[in-house]
Amino acid sequence: MSLRDFAHQTKMQLYLIRHGIAVERESYAQDAERPLTNKGRQKTTQVAKQLSERGLYFNLILTSPLVRAKQTAAILQEANLGAKVQEFASLAPKGEIFDWLNWLESQRQINYRDKCLALVGHQPDLGNWAETLVWGKAQEKLMLKKAGVIGIEMPVTKTPIGQSELFLLVSPKWLL
Amino acid sequence: MSLRDFAHQTKMQLYLIRHGIAVERESYAQDAERPLTNKGRQKTTQVAKQLSERGLYFNLILTSPLVRAKQTAAILQEANLGAKVQEFASLAPKGEIFDWLNWLESQRQINYRDKCLALVGHQPDLGNWAETLVWGKAQEKLMLKKAGVIGIEMPVTKTPIGQSELFLLVSPKWLL
Repeated sequence: MSLRDFAHQTKMQLYLIRHGIAVERESYAQDAERPLTNKGRQKTTQVAKQLSERGLYFNLILTSPLVRAKQTAAILQEANLGAKVQEFASLAPKGEIFDWLNWLESQRQINYRDKCLALVGHQPDLGNWAETLVWGKAQEKLMLKKAGVIGIEMPVTKTPIGQSELFLLVSPKWLL
Repeated sequence: MSLRDFAHQTKMQLYLIRHGIAVERESYAQDAERPLTNKGRQKTTQVAKQLSERGLYFNLILTSPLVRAKQTAAILQEANLGAKVQEFASLAPKGEIFDWLNWLESQRQINYRDKCLALVGHQPDLGNWAETLVWGKAQEKLMLKKAGVIGIEMPVTKTPIGQSELFLLVSPKWLL
């Protein structure tokens, strides 16, 4: 097996999943506490079902600590998309890519080679992170709807920044 | 109505659709003559059905003159995705973006405002064109499978190069 073949085998799939539709900002004093609406819960459940039916399984689901994201992550888990959900503070709005990427880097040396991970979070951060991984910088050109999904293939043998590839960008409309 | 509102109303949706699975290059003396395989025809038909069920309708389907692309365009038409299919030489492999973009520009001043168009063609051209429209240059970072679909929102009141947005990138797997 050549080095190139080996490198090819050690790509990681990263799914960036935006939380579902939440109650309006006006209805809650604390933005962080806003829950999903019934419609948001329903659409997110349908998206999760479609992902699961396509054989997707996340070795780890990292979620923003905000209620609407945690509820989205719980729905993914209920759909058998992953056994392990973990809160990660830097996935909250305005989080920095390197906060979770460095953590992931330290983890994946041990556990996450050839694995599939999900991050549940917010816009415009998820889109910005995707652009940074794929094209090296954020330009806010990816339209990611609520409960929408971005799929990225990241190399694990070199920095993923500007060296990843985009294979999926989809809104719930296409998965219902 | 402000100028900004007006501009917002005159965006155009562009779908870049890669031809389905075709017979191997070795089996045909002429690359341009390679037809879709049964599996390619079947998968493309399923993708077309899914697009149609989501209410998509193309005001015009432009296709590469190669047989595998023309067959793909015909399948889209059979699924009631558009009444009009037109061959366009510059959609053949190694075509230049400005060849079809300039033509489109001249047409859309008259007919294609707020409209939805499909281009049926080849990789890596479709991915390169998408990146050029959205990020201003091609880096071959979009993974577009056969019968896969890219969706782009293009402004019509200014050049779309580097000023469009990506809203869809999907392989048949997600639409079957």
